[in-house]
Amino acid sequence: MEFKVPADDNLKRYICSACNSIFYSNPNIVIGTVCIKNQEVLLCKRNIEPRYGKWTLPAGFMENAETLQEGALRETKEETQASPKIISPYTAFSLTHISQVHFFYLADLGDEKFGPTPESSEVKLFKQDEIPWDEIAFPTVSKTLKYYFDDISSGNFPFREEALKLW
Amino acid sequence: MEFKVPADDNLKRYICSACNSIFYSNPNIVIGTVCIKNQEVLLCKRNIEPRYGKWTLPAGFMENAETLQEGALRETKEETQASPKIISPYTAFSLTHISQVHFFYLADLGDEKFGPTPESSEVKLFKQDEIPWDEIAFPTVSKTLKYYFDDISSGNFPFREEALKLW
Repeated sequence: MEFKVPADDNLKRYICSACNSIFYSNPNIVIGTVCIKNQEVLLCKRNIEPRYGKWTLPAGFMENAETLQEGALRETKEETQASPKIISPYTAFSLTHISQVHFFYLADLGDEKFGPTPESSEVKLFKQDEIPWDEIAFPTVSKTLKYYFDDISSGNFPFREEALKLW
Repeated sequence: MEFKVPADDNLKRYICSACNSIFYSNPNIVIGTVCIKNQEVLLCKRNIEPRYGKWTLPAGFMENAETLQEGALRETKEETQASPKIISPYTAFSLTHISQVHFFYLADLGDEKFGPTPESSEVKLFKQDEIPWDEIAFPTVSKTLKYYFDDISSGNFPFREEALKLW
């Protein structure tokens, strides 16, 4: 395997020296939900690495052949057992240091049951003043939670798209 | 190389039989712009495959270590020579049949110069009644253009996120 610029390209790619196949690497999408019930938010305590034991919104890597919404609902089910209803796209973050885009939907938990799963040791609804801010697993989760509680006062939950450059 | 479900996973992945490395394949992001000047839209005639000779909005694969906006502006420059100003996120489409997410921004062309590039044999501003609807390269481009001309009447250009399932 070599790391070099292919013909008609301008970035280095991994190229097999034997067969000349090019192995492209591009940013990955992480999709998840902000599941709401009576202005409380559903968080999961991570039972897996990275950030084992920290709290997060349910989210994970989008898979081939699914839509953004299907992926967000699949990850939510895998991590919380719940099947909420999508309300609207809410936040999107470009993370250049890890080449990821994180995309969260607002979702209505309704009367859905929720609980622990192999990926989450605890799953709980949190009021604003109960959020364990120092124990949140990922910066995009903290930012999304802050936006949600800020937006409650205006009653307006616009889509936000921004960069999060950590280094 | 084998195609099988790794331990602690639930989808088949490509796994090297010799070293057990897992090669994940996930959806790719295509980012681009709807560059506007006096309600005219900048289109490019493709000088490359696929859809050689058809018209498109400037767009292409997001690269590692760039933001959505940086990628959209890079692709716009590569395909039109222009460096517009981003206005707002405009459309996002999940394409399950090719495992892609297409993401377009509205952008202000201003007094930027534009013209042909190695990837575009022609680059032109089009009024609504000049758009070559039967010669548009990709369905997400047609949809985005229709939304833009529909939105002109209301003066409101909301972000839209949807699935485009072609088969």
